[in-house]
Amino acid sequence: MITEIAHVEIDSDRLPEFEAAMKVAVSTVLSKSHGYRDFELLKGVERPSVYTFIIHWETLEDHTVGFRESNLFTEWREIIGPFFAHPPVVEHWSHRFNANA
Amino acid sequence: MITEIAHVEIDSDRLPEFEAAMKVAVSTVLSKSHGYRDFELLKGVERPSVYTFIIHWETLEDHTVGFRESNLFTEWREIIGPFFAHPPVVEHWSHRFNANA
Repeated sequence: MITEIAHVEIDSDRLPEFEAAMKVAVSTVLSKSHGYRDFELLKGVERPSVYTFIIHWETLEDHTVGFRESNLFTEWREIIGPFFAHPPVVEHWSHRFNANA
Repeated sequence: MITEIAHVEIDSDRLPEFEAAMKVAVSTVLSKSHGYRDFELLKGVERPSVYTFIIHWETLEDHTVGFRESNLFTEWREIIGPFFAHPPVVEHWSHRFNANA
């Protein structure tokens, strides 16, 4: 499993509209992509117009090739791209360990 | 609930040693902090000597006041701080929504 973490700044006067669009994009586009496991949307405390997406994929290539080179990615960006103030910053991470309280 | 996401670059010749120290720091220090829920350690794919911590707290203040102003934070930094190549970049995030495949 691979974790994608993306940070994206959204036009500050369109945050509720962006969040609504994000729900549509996840349920109608991302959910159809091979290897997609789950998605979480987080909103910045220190930077209130910056959002973080945490997306789990089966493999790195499920995201970088399977999703990004598909028509789904075009649809995804058509829905949420208009809200982006700047291009998102995206990186991938491999799980090392976790612990609970 | 609040999500802390921290990115930290580690001396590249000390990664296994850092990961072992991190397990000790989580189990002996972080786990004792009020409001701590869970911890995940992730390792960079694009930047292999950068790690991400994802830590869930009951409230923002459980981290920023309860933990950071306690002796536990001193112990935490004593264990893992020597491996840091630079000071960590830490931000907090509020949950908006999640979805599963």
